Amino acid sequence: MIRTKRDGGRIPDAEIDWVIDAYTRGAVADEQMAALAMAILLNGMERAELSRWTAAMIASGERLDLSAVSRPTTDKHSTGGVGDKITLPLAPLVASLGAAVPQLSGRGLGHTGGTLDKLESIRGWRAQLSNADFVEQLNTVGAVICAAGDGLAPADRKLYALRDVTGTVEAIPLIASSIMSKKIAEGSAALVLDVKVGSGAFMKNLADARRLAETMVELGTAAGTNTVALLTDMDTPLGRTAGNALEVAESVEVLSGGGPADVVELTVALASEMLAGVGITDVDPAAALADGRAMDVWRRMIAAQGGDPDAPLPRAAERHVLTAPASGTLTRLDAYGVGVAAWRLGAGRARKEDPVSAGAGVVMLAKPGDQVTAGQPLLELHTDEPSRFDRAIEALAGSFDIDQAGTFTHLPLVLDRVTG
Amino acid sequence: MIRTKRDGGRIPDAEIDWVIDAYTRGAVADEQMAALAMAILLNGMERAELSRWTAAMIASGERLDLSAVSRPTTDKHSTGGVGDKITLPLAPLVASLGAAVPQLSGRGLGHTGGTLDKLESIRGWRAQLSNADFVEQLNTVGAVICAAGDGLAPADRKLYALRDVTGTVEAIPLIASSIMSKKIAEGSAALVLDVKVGSGAFMKNLADARRLAETMVELGTAAGTNTVALLTDMDTPLGRTAGNALEVAESVEVLSGGGPADVVELTVALASEMLAGVGITDVDPAAALADGRAMDVWRRMIAAQGGDPDAPLPRAAERHVLTAPASGTLTRLDAYGVGVAAWRLGAGRARKEDPVSAGAGVVMLAKPGDQVTAGQPLLELHTDEPSRFDRAIEALAGSFDIDQAGTFTHLPLVLDRVTG
Repeated sequence: MIRTKRDGGRIPDAEIDWVIDAYTRGAVADEQMAALAMAILLNGMERAELSRWTAAMIASGERLDLSAVSRPTTDKHSTGGVGDKITLPLAPLVASLGAAVPQLSGRGLGHTGGTLDKLESIRGWRAQLSNADFVEQLNTVGAVICAAGDGLAPADRKLYALRDVTGTVEAIPLIASSIMSKKIAEGSAALVLDVKVGSGAFMKNLADARRLAETMVELGTAAGTNTVALLTDMDTPLGRTAGNALEVAESVEVLSGGGPADVVELTVALASEMLAGVGITDVDPAAALADGRAMDVWRRMIAAQGGDPDAPLPRAAERHVLTAPASGTLTRLDAYGVGVAAWRLGAGRARKEDPVSAGAGVVMLAKPGDQVTAGQPLLELHTDEPSRFDRAIEALAGSFDIDQAGTFTHLPLVLDRVTG
Repeated sequence: MIRTKRDGGRIPDAEIDWVIDAYTRGAVADEQMAALAMAILLNGMERAELSRWTAAMIASGERLDLSAVSRPTTDKHSTGGVGDKITLPLAPLVASLGAAVPQLSGRGLGHTGGTLDKLESIRGWRAQLSNADFVEQLNTVGAVICAAGDGLAPADRKLYALRDVTGTVEAIPLIASSIMSKKIAEGSAALVLDVKVGSGAFMKNLADARRLAETMVELGTAAGTNTVALLTDMDTPLGRTAGNALEVAESVEVLSGGGPADVVELTVALASEMLAGVGITDVDPAAALADGRAMDVWRRMIAAQGGDPDAPLPRAAERHVLTAPASGTLTRLDAYGVGVAAWRLGAGRARKEDPVSAGAGVVMLAKPGDQVTAGQPLLELHTDEPSRFDRAIEALAGSFDIDQAGTFTHLPLVLDRVTG
């Protein structure tokens, strides 16, 4: 099988089924799967071949049974960005408009945050739910954001850990099948993919992001999940915060009818797609944010998982303000730089087993397009350990531009839409 | 480093040194080396990069010190073929003409035989020598054929075992560095490579064989070893025997001034190259075979390692004769088919730890170009276990052609010569 892929061939279906099962069981050695992964990275996979590969990954574990959920189910997946708290207002918003949102999320690794890490900054909130509680909450509240159980696509967990240490993460077929095996196993009727493009995203350019989006939409469609993808900008962080509790607070602002325009815009765009995916088109998501319907679901969703929506959020012990070195227009604020700074302040983790700080992160007091005056506060760094400031400040050096003469044109946040 | 090679780049020297050392020590995991090996297979290596890789493999172990050897040292390596017993007459022949031959050999695996397996069919002969005895025998006898110690290029041993199970054997840079790291570490002044081409060889076509030969000659030359390569035919087995004791007997015939013409031709051609490599050109290898000088060194070489050159060779208990199904010219006798038959009769091993049978093998009673009559004995199969005949006969089905009308043209045995 390794030789077939090495020589540019297509792996037969039966061999795909065998290798995924055997690798999950430990009958295929890591070094053999690593060689196969590298051959896939360099020689690619045909469409039907990848579909089978993904199906075999799904078959390595359980599939959620959402048949007892009375509302139509629809979900969203983001490929990860800086300040990307969209899931927090989005899930209750979509639930408030008649669909059920079964969102299985992960924790952050590296410079992008994790949805579960953010929610865990709410006092009492717990990420673990039994399958029965999961279905119950979908029926009563309409939205669940919780940790994926170990039973979902275990082949992917093992394969991802291997790819991480063998330089084989950056293979579009393997990225697509990793994401889609879990999302298809989750069993929602519709799925919207938010594929990020830019410095703060995994995909740095539009062509790669489009290829990934098309591949994932094909896989979802082939598996019977109504799938669309939006390609969205990640050169600039989303909103004005990057960090766990900081992003929860900003999400609550959005659910209160306020919040940064870009967060609201993307939340509404994704909500419309998620709802359209299950045939709900005669609704106004912006209105449901403004009039408190989404906020009502949010409060019930948090409470259902043990959280206190009224508890004060944790705040970091120490702050440091970076000021504008000149007057003019802020023309660039680099997502990667801000993401790394938030990570170094304690908001993210370098290894899976590391803890994260709830209060740490970056508050962006200005965003691209804003006029700033020399000496004006630009970025506020929050951390529990002041020794972390220096390396965070380093990450921000060169991460923004102020142009005295420059005019600034806002580029669209949603760059393109990919359908099956 | 994996990413560099995956993306088509050149691995920096310091990183090559590090990874070979760290892999040998166990600090780089098998799955990481497997991914790197696959990336090398698919993306290749630059000349200087491969030279450094080979040097790092050599540096992973000891280098033999031949400075105490009084004669000029010259060696030969064959990439492996069927009936390839050339080392046996060649080493004493070259020693009889004034050079010293420090030949570190291996055992057979698969359908090609191993020189040590052949010599071990001689009563009392032992493959293991200390470094001191090795140098002593080079000074007194002039030729040694023995097992390579564990100290020579240990990185190669570990890497080869990994490549064997990860579909990464067939990478020309890795094949070349595997062979040349051991041969350069062996420390002879000159080296002749016999690169086999054809059905019974690792390289099935001339283009691949030439690429391998050029790569190895470059590596040897860059390391200061005077290296040339001959590309030689391996569509047809060499000589009239394939098997351990059977090939020793045939080698003794050659050393007695007789033996099959092709074995004599290649022995003389390689001897001339080995001697020319250390500046000895005014000699006549064919004469040294005919007049017993080579035989004299053979007897002393075998005796020096505990062997009795006069002891009768082991014979297999059972024989089976395949006869010609028609009359005409034998136009083809496939090396691969004969090699697999000998292997299945017990002459070779499937796994490193398997024993081999000294007496088993195939005697070819006709060779391509010979006229045969229907019913005439064509191939004689020797084995200790008659249950092995069936699968050996299967391997020979379709392995020869008899053409009633056909004329036959002998193709040259030496196809080309590659120099630095």
